[in-house]
Amino acid sequence: MSKLKLQAPLGTGDYLPDECAEKRRLEQCLRQAFHMGGYDEIETPSFEYYDVFMHDAVQYVQENIIKFFDARGRILALRPDMTGPIARMAATKLAESTDVLRLCYVGNVYGFKSNESEYTQAGVELIGKRGAEADAEVIALAIRALKTAGMVDFKIDIGQVAFFRGLLAETEITDEQAERIRLLTDTKNSVELEYELSRMNVQHEIIGTLLALCGLFGGVEVLKKAKALAKNELCAQAVENVREVYEILCDFGYGKHLSIDFGLLNNFNYYSGILFRGIADGVGVPILSGGRYDELLREFGADLPATGFAIGIKELLVILEAQGRLKNERQRITVIKCGRQTRKRAYAYAQELRQAGKRVVLDMNGAEYDAALYDSITFE
Amino acid sequence: MSKLKLQAPLGTGDYLPDECAEKRRLEQCLRQAFHMGGYDEIETPSFEYYDVFMHDAVQYVQENIIKFFDARGRILALRPDMTGPIARMAATKLAESTDVLRLCYVGNVYGFKSNESEYTQAGVELIGKRGAEADAEVIALAIRALKTAGMVDFKIDIGQVAFFRGLLAETEITDEQAERIRLLTDTKNSVELEYELSRMNVQHEIIGTLLALCGLFGGVEVLKKAKALAKNELCAQAVENVREVYEILCDFGYGKHLSIDFGLLNNFNYYSGILFRGIADGVGVPILSGGRYDELLREFGADLPATGFAIGIKELLVILEAQGRLKNERQRITVIKCGRQTRKRAYAYAQELRQAGKRVVLDMNGAEYDAALYDSITFE
Repeated sequence: MSKLKLQAPLGTGDYLPDECAEKRRLEQCLRQAFHMGGYDEIETPSFEYYDVFMHDAVQYVQENIIKFFDARGRILALRPDMTGPIARMAATKLAESTDVLRLCYVGNVYGFKSNESEYTQAGVELIGKRGAEADAEVIALAIRALKTAGMVDFKIDIGQVAFFRGLLAETEITDEQAERIRLLTDTKNSVELEYELSRMNVQHEIIGTLLALCGLFGGVEVLKKAKALAKNELCAQAVENVREVYEILCDFGYGKHLSIDFGLLNNFNYYSGILFRGIADGVGVPILSGGRYDELLREFGADLPATGFAIGIKELLVILEAQGRLKNERQRITVIKCGRQTRKRAYAYAQELRQAGKRVVLDMNGAEYDAALYDSITFE
Repeated sequence: MSKLKLQAPLGTGDYLPDECAEKRRLEQCLRQAFHMGGYDEIETPSFEYYDVFMHDAVQYVQENIIKFFDARGRILALRPDMTGPIARMAATKLAESTDVLRLCYVGNVYGFKSNESEYTQAGVELIGKRGAEADAEVIALAIRALKTAGMVDFKIDIGQVAFFRGLLAETEITDEQAERIRLLTDTKNSVELEYELSRMNVQHEIIGTLLALCGLFGGVEVLKKAKALAKNELCAQAVENVREVYEILCDFGYGKHLSIDFGLLNNFNYYSGILFRGIADGVGVPILSGGRYDELLREFGADLPATGFAIGIKELLVILEAQGRLKNERQRITVIKCGRQTRKRAYAYAQELRQAGKRVVLDMNGAEYDAALYDSITFE
């Protein structure tokens, strides 16, 4: 027998009953939080024509995308994220229906990127609204969603890619160099960043500011420092945007969940304004990431601004498990044992119990059941 | 701009908010019916190593399976059904945990087979139980699930592949010929069937019985006719199995939903005993299909009998829609309009309303909202 026959593919896994029950409960919590916040759930196919992920605005890493051919030889791609497909759908089917679209989803995304090649995300997209109020609405929803899911100690790191873009506008570096700087700044690798910058054609003063970005994180005091470092109007507006979002979220009562980080630059190509990620206290992996992407829908013929985020369900499950916050309560099952003569009445009784909220199995063969999980009733 | 960028792939589609809400409601209904019947939900990856679908017992049509390579060059396949992956999972991870496994799922399956290349199925597998009681348990659950979902007028056609196999055992035809006969019988194409049989090396009497199969459907009276046509013990046991299942289901109160059809032979290679499908009155397309497959788990190293079924969510949605049984009630959204000075109180009030079950959006920009969908409150 082929060994592969007995394994789930590399980077995927099975959810057995207890894990699956927790996953469903969590998904339902998030879905409910999105729903109550006025977001409507949608569903798109698991795969798209590859062209959906080929943008000017967004650079996906081609080799990470899982591709195959349809029956006519066209290239299909298992979606690497939900934002591309939702942008396609919103731009082509929903853009004219209303000014503002509030959409949410729970779905799987795919890729060869990391050690996970299939993972579930729950997220939202707010399409058609610009400004700090829209950004704050989405971040507030992210916070409510995490709280509803059972998260207690977590922070939302807020950054603003336009601050970084504003600094780059003062230089004459290439796109490739910009990407290199972004990566080193995002990973706070200031030693290597300094070395790389020294080899590029960048003014001494801008080098200093770019290096300072790596340390430009913390509480509200960071805003003052950032303002002092702003080199132009773009930088200044970025700082102002973060200040407004921060103030709104404080008014909403979420101050303790906020931190600011102007060095946060993940998915630079994707986002055009505010960006943020959710981090559980004491855990390095982000459980949530999002931001503003005002240029993406234009790629699909609808020039609409948008903000969104996605929560990683597996990451959330792992953290809640580690914190002992999962319920892990499997509802007991009642077994009704009966025979040929009693099965009619037994079935009617089983249906009564089910109506009353009990899980019931009818057993006409006298099998044994584990008393740890099952209650037994014998129907004479 | 590439045209493909603006389309969902051939054979797939988007679920927009209203459709998606109905789909989720239906999935949740079915999930709940399975749960109350003692079935635990599981989740497997969207794709498997191709080997999972290469069996002696089951013959999948290779060219219908969507295949691609993993990063190491191994062949992966988007699952063409859930039964294969669940058999893999059950045989390798759950077989030793208990005598009987009751598993259910709601998930997507894939293929180039028809005009749908991705479709959602909800179904169950009862693993580790033999006999008419197990068959009846699964069919009763299928009936409850369809009723819970809102179906009223439907029939479960019950067949038994062992009757057909018993007849073939009396001949010396090849596997290919058997497959040809199966297909013509299942589609009740008796004219072509007679022609084909006349060219094969089959006894005159068996030809008559095989031709009679096409007409061997109807109510309980069919059992008597089938018994008279039984050529050997295998045929006779098949009839007896259907009789027992039929009687149990009548005791459960489901007589009016049953019909018998010994010519029902879909997925011959897959099933080894009883098989059934659900048909809505007046609609040709099956909304449910299932049966016993006692040979499949052996392929994964666990020699366990099993019965299961899958419901097609899209088919169910289409029929319920046509019958006017979908709710299509979108919950209204309350918009709270506020400004910088009032947003703090407005947010607290929004949270109160959400706790009370209302969907609430906060608007700090004074946008217009469609009165057909939104209620407005202005917070001074």
